[in-house]
Amino acid sequence: MENDYNDLLSRFIESGDHTLDKILLFTAEIDKMTSVLRRTILIDRSRRENDAEHSWHISVMALLFEKYAVERPNVLHAVEMMLVHDLVEIYAGDTFAYDIAGNASKKEREKLAADKLYALLPSDQSAYLRSLWEEFDAAETTDAKYANCLDRLQPFLHNTLTKGYTWSNYGFRTKRAQVAARMDILREFMPAVHEWVVKCMDTAVQNGWLDE
Amino acid sequence: MENDYNDLLSRFIESGDHTLDKILLFTAEIDKMTSVLRRTILIDRSRRENDAEHSWHISVMALLFEKYAVERPNVLHAVEMMLVHDLVEIYAGDTFAYDIAGNASKKEREKLAADKLYALLPSDQSAYLRSLWEEFDAAETTDAKYANCLDRLQPFLHNTLTKGYTWSNYGFRTKRAQVAARMDILREFMPAVHEWVVKCMDTAVQNGWLDE
Repeated sequence: MENDYNDLLSRFIESGDHTLDKILLFTAEIDKMTSVLRRTILIDRSRRENDAEHSWHISVMALLFEKYAVERPNVLHAVEMMLVHDLVEIYAGDTFAYDIAGNASKKEREKLAADKLYALLPSDQSAYLRSLWEEFDAAETTDAKYANCLDRLQPFLHNTLTKGYTWSNYGFRTKRAQVAARMDILREFMPAVHEWVVKCMDTAVQNGWLDE
Repeated sequence: MENDYNDLLSRFIESGDHTLDKILLFTAEIDKMTSVLRRTILIDRSRRENDAEHSWHISVMALLFEKYAVERPNVLHAVEMMLVHDLVEIYAGDTFAYDIAGNASKKEREKLAADKLYALLPSDQSAYLRSLWEEFDAAETTDAKYANCLDRLQPFLHNTLTKGYTWSNYGFRTKRAQVAARMDILREFMPAVHEWVVKCMDTAVQNGWLDE
């Protein structure tokens, strides 16, 4: 990755404005989100989804699901979080929600990745983007809860439409209780949507996409 | 496309809440943005970029370039526009900026696509998303100008880092005046960034990526 960034620097045409150069280079660097692959497959089943696509998809969802949240979120602040919440994966990689070992080391790997990534930006923007990521990760504010709900709902929706692809195509079978635990944040925060989630899990177990 | 949507309907698990179903199905339908290919290639040159990736990328840029706009934009309203501005291309296809024939029919094709796409949503959301797209396309408000500037700056940045890929790899050579016309909106609205654009066009001509 370090070499990649030096390669980027060598191709970059400087503006003479150091701040602008930092922002342009950061913009170019985060294009790597397009090659961070998630476990989720696209709804047309053609290939795995990447982080850029996922971040866009949940951001649009944020404009649509507001009425289902029990506390009124600041939708656009939630969108800000969603746009940047996975950036650290450029250096830390995606960690599959049901990968126990991967999740044990996730926090430390992502902290190091954040230190490296946000150092590329001017300091005010660096602090702001980092605070968005931290707010998302803590999942304590209303807006962060809304963002986390949609971050989980989107791959769940994909699974319901692809015979539970990620639940059974990675060398192990997922249990309903694991998915239920991951989706539990919706039970309190988006109860009407959670009812649909429960119905889908029932169907998934009946169809053999999920183990009871 | 009609058959695709019926296929989606046949796989969808209904919630019993008609409004929620519409929103979930719309969310699933717009996943097709991941297969609308643009002429731009990714900065690592691995493949062509798609509309979902592009929409995400410019939305993040909106959080970063505000200080370069001569009129202070409502960044988050601009982001809303950017997230949805290319949705009509799911049915209308992407029209290359320098394709004269394609651009002549673009308006009518995109209007028909919008009628079809937005009909999938509950009426209040349908009207709102359509208004965002229309505001972006008119490029008259401060926020729409900001969004349009970044929508043009992002592929331009990619071109500067890929030896002008889209300018010379589609069976014809692009002239500097064509690119300059497309980037002209930045001259007034983001003058400091436009200075960098001019410098890059100079370099592009010197390097033979663009014709004088």
